[in-house]
Amino acid sequence: MNKDADTAKRKRRASKKKGLVIVNTGNGKGKTTAALGVLFRAWGRGMNVGVVQFLKSSTARYGEIKAARKLGIDWVVTGDGWTWTSRDLDESAALAQHGWELAQARIASGEYDILILDEFTYPLHFGWLDTDEVIAWLRGHKPPMLHLIITGRYAPQTLIDFADLVTEMVEVKHPYRDQGITAQPGIEF
Amino acid sequence: MNKDADTAKRKRRASKKKGLVIVNTGNGKGKTTAALGVLFRAWGRGMNVGVVQFLKSSTARYGEIKAARKLGIDWVVTGDGWTWTSRDLDESAALAQHGWELAQARIASGEYDILILDEFTYPLHFGWLDTDEVIAWLRGHKPPMLHLIITGRYAPQTLIDFADLVTEMVEVKHPYRDQGITAQPGIEF
Repeated sequence: MNKDADTAKRKRRASKKKGLVIVNTGNGKGKTTAALGVLFRAWGRGMNVGVVQFLKSSTARYGEIKAARKLGIDWVVTGDGWTWTSRDLDESAALAQHGWELAQARIASGEYDILILDEFTYPLHFGWLDTDEVIAWLRGHKPPMLHLIITGRYAPQTLIDFADLVTEMVEVKHPYRDQGITAQPGIEF
Repeated sequence: MNKDADTAKRKRRASKKKGLVIVNTGNGKGKTTAALGVLFRAWGRGMNVGVVQFLKSSTARYGEIKAARKLGIDWVVTGDGWTWTSRDLDESAALAQHGWELAQARIASGEYDILILDEFTYPLHFGWLDTDEVIAWLRGHKPPMLHLIITGRYAPQTLIDFADLVTEMVEVKHPYRDQGITAQPGIEF
């Protein structure tokens, strides 16, 4: 095959494959776990995967962080133990900014096939980070083949417009409220 | 604490924890990957997990099967390469029945903390298995602490009624149709 035909072929292929911006949002279960499933699958294929977790909590994510450590998967916890009742919003904003810088370094490094920005919608939704600035930076710096998975409720509309693949996890039935069942290890965290 | 108080305390605790029947359904992404994320997390905790996959396909599930093998996770593929255009429905029904027997043996064994019945809704939806019989069997045989995760579109209403936790994955935006992007390794399979 001559060089022009080869280039044309590569171009055609490139037009069909690209690194996706994926958003898992909604009030239901499965936003983070679906991202973890992708991570599990990609790890099975020997791809280089990483996680930047934007909200820190004492027990949540315990099982998955343990699994990631066992497998040598890069997992960085950033942000504070922010809850709906937090008062020190300046602190939350500063931590979100720090987390975003860690994420930017990983994105721009070109070393990853898939990166998960877990609970990244919250700093955007609450204005700790500027969604337009984040998207503008991603347009300029995200390597074309990198898949980026963003999870969390309240995904801003501009992020949805920017994303390639958006899924809303809708709660149909939930046992913890309906039956008084507590969150359980392995299933919930 | 005396023995009676201890027993009462354990009873209260037991009434709050139970093995859940979880259904991930809907037309969106993330039904199977969310189940895989739970598997990944539970494996991180050293729990005993397994998968019975009810539809076989040549490339789908490739990454996750590879990951499961690397981790020594029990994963059995059953069913045929059924597609929407399949004609030999007797064959599909026989294979679904065989898969269900493999699942029943694993459920009744008491050896698992979490079992995933991947794409199990299809044999129910298409009537290859009788949903009422399946539920009646589960009521009689599922160990109380076993978590069972069932994935696939078209979850029958009786299954939803029986389940503890039901999430519908709703497609908000999909790149493959909208942008002509092909399914990609790691993300899709």
